[in-house]
Amino acid sequence: MIYLDNSATTRPHKEVMETYMTVSERFFGNASSLHRLGMESEKVLNRARSLMAELLEVEVSSILFTSGGTESNNLAIKGSLMSSFQKGHHVITTACEHASIYQTYKSLEAQGYQVTYLPVDEHGLVSITDLEQAITKETSLVSISHVNNETGSIQPIEKMGELLHDYPKIRFHVDHVQGAGKVPLSIKKSHIDLLTISAHKFHGLKGTAVLYVRPGLHLSPLFHGGEQESGFRGGTENVAWAAAMAKAYKMELAKSRSGVDELKKLRQQLIERIVKSEKLVLNSNSKYGAPHIINLSIPGYKPEVVVQKLAEKEIYVSTQSACSSKSNEPSRVLLAMGKNEELAGSAIRISLSYESSEKEIETFFSTLNDLLPSIRKVVKS
Amino acid sequence: MIYLDNSATTRPHKEVMETYMTVSERFFGNASSLHRLGMESEKVLNRARSLMAELLEVEVSSILFTSGGTESNNLAIKGSLMSSFQKGHHVITTACEHASIYQTYKSLEAQGYQVTYLPVDEHGLVSITDLEQAITKETSLVSISHVNNETGSIQPIEKMGELLHDYPKIRFHVDHVQGAGKVPLSIKKSHIDLLTISAHKFHGLKGTAVLYVRPGLHLSPLFHGGEQESGFRGGTENVAWAAAMAKAYKMELAKSRSGVDELKKLRQQLIERIVKSEKLVLNSNSKYGAPHIINLSIPGYKPEVVVQKLAEKEIYVSTQSACSSKSNEPSRVLLAMGKNEELAGSAIRISLSYESSEKEIETFFSTLNDLLPSIRKVVKS
Ligand SMILES: Cc1ncc(COP(=O)(O)O)c(C=O)c1O
Ligand SMILES: Cc1ncc(COP(=O)(O)O)c(C=O)c1O
Repeated sequence: MIYLDNSATTRPHKEVMETYMTVSERFFGNASSLHRLGMESEKVLNRARSLMAELLEVEVSSILFTSGGTESNNLAIKGSLMSSFQKGHHVITTACEHASIYQTYKSLEAQGYQVTYLPVDEHGLVSITDLEQAITKETSLVSISHVNNETGSIQPIEKMGELLHDYPKIRFHVDHVQGAGKVPLSIKKSHIDLLTISAHKFHGLKGTAVLYVRPGLHLSPLFHGGEQESGFRGGTENVAWAAAMAKAYKMELAKSRSGVDELKKLRQQLIERIVKSEKLVLNSNSKYGAPHIINLSIPGYKPEVVVQKLAEKEIYVSTQSACSSKSNEPSRVLLAMGKNEELAGSAIRISLSYESSEKEIETFFSTLNDLLPSIRKVVKS
Repeated sequence: MIYLDNSATTRPHKEVMETYMTVSERFFGNASSLHRLGMESEKVLNRARSLMAELLEVEVSSILFTSGGTESNNLAIKGSLMSSFQKGHHVITTACEHASIYQTYKSLEAQGYQVTYLPVDEHGLVSITDLEQAITKETSLVSISHVNNETGSIQPIEKMGELLHDYPKIRFHVDHVQGAGKVPLSIKKSHIDLLTISAHKFHGLKGTAVLYVRPGLHLSPLFHGGEQESGFRGGTENVAWAAAMAKAYKMELAKSRSGVDELKKLRQQLIERIVKSEKLVLNSNSKYGAPHIINLSIPGYKPEVVVQKLAEKEIYVSTQSACSSKSNEPSRVLLAMGKNEELAGSAIRISLSYESSEKEIETFFSTLNDLLPSIRKVVKS
């Protein structure tokens, strides 16, 4: 199997599963229970929280465990806007966000919030000037993805953070789900207030994520209930998941030390093959971008069919983001980058992990070349 | 170890862990991905959903997987009230609900909703007449727990459902978290619209739960994002958790067939021992109640101290619900039942599983008897 769909989800590491199993069995007590079993569970939870804090270089109290990147993004946004401490009915995001941000803002728009969707250039990048000009007296929140999940574009988060630092009433929320472990980002240097990462994108378990919440910020909880997670998220704590997530992130960061250069080489290899081919069009920026995500189009071909034909040969890639892949519509992200309907409607995403190899990429291209003649081209209407 | 704190959480079954492991490894693909790996994951998810539906005797499309009982309750309540299809600013609940319902209503009250907290009698029961009289033209939702998590009181859900069936605009939401697998309840016969169960209360994994949503009902999602879970909950699906939850529930229902009678005997044994003792006061109803939850008070003793002393002897019980146990306040539930501050402030909950035995209960009482003289009594101020 050649798995090149790591931005959709990754195969969990054996070590992560082991941590999960051990903690689930040995520390099954409710971390909120008063008795010793409970206190032991709480200790393991605290250790996981400390490790996440250390790896992200932030305060322990700022780490909140949630059930996924989608929850973290929704909590960051709705939790901020619903908090009585946060005023202002204008918010800013981009035209290229993941559904968990984009649809959240769409729903808030329907409730009367004014939302600015910043445009992006042909590389998928937001301009700092545009961001600055969009700010009004009513602006209370800015949400931007660090690394785009379809194209690998990297937004200038640090520069944005510097700008927003001059507006202390505005919260800066960053979706770091696709960047985590692949594209370094300093929470502190970028003056980030809220940041999302999700474990299943780096060989952790599905349904575990973190929301970094800058100490001192208040959030209105999505889940009212017990006083768990600083009162920002009620519900029995998932000690084993927290431990497994910390384990996965630690492993990913360790791998990134030697692995990022290798990934960059693979990216270069991919780009060269795409650019050389007459049938393929590169949508990601050829020079600057996350090392693990490359987007290309095969004009004239239905991407769903290509994905399925490749899967028959045990090669896994995707069309757009997994959660939008069933819609069969042209990619909203590529359209925002100014690509035409044909390119946006025939895009394929290749996403690597630290386990990917040159040979896998060669096999991908040769298989694709062999397959294309057997796939019926779409007749332009 | 004698673990009598099963209403806080249970030890996961080995078979459940195995299901979780196998599915996590073999079906790690994103269930929303178009390729074969994704479709295989989707199949496993569908099977888990079908099994849950079969066990709950409802339609497959009505089963929604969430990250916990707290999420399910919040989604049922906020998702109903925020849905544009649901009108009416009056809601009804009881004075005895779990924090995940109680605090949710408290927060809605602060937002302007009118909330009726129905009183309960000395057995913790709501009267049908009170419920009927509380209904107004503005009532849109009624939330009631089937089995109380502190005392084991069983509400007359079926009768309530019959009454509410005459008010088609009112949704009937039932928290079945403590009843699941212990006290049978028919969703259909009770005309229930929304029902919560949580896996870690029956030897499943923490952070997996179900919300039953009657087909045709609309909910406003807490998590906007992808179109997963009928559009009611965005986020990458947790296939392995869903499979593990279905496994746990199936096992629990199988055990309940022969096990409930055994549990009832243990309950009787507990009650007899409590009633015979001069130091103990029974708070649960001696005749009618869930077979696995018994609440007693030890007037004059701090329950936190008793719980910790017992834990030193490897016997685990709890004060009130785990998520409120750190507050050290008298139990809100017992106060609502008309118990005085002294009883409500010295309560201990014993909660059994199908693994509990007569011998464990004997050891609990003899250890408690040995311990009490060594614990300093609270001097009444
Ligand atoms: C950029 C981005 N944000 C958020 C998410 C949502 O994370 P999760 O699947 O854990 O809900 C994803 C992936 O699905 C993503 O790619
Ligand atoms: C009656 C009741 N409802 C809801 C919950 C919340 O479930 P969870 O711990 O899965 O969030 C609990 C237990 O914590 C409970 O006892």
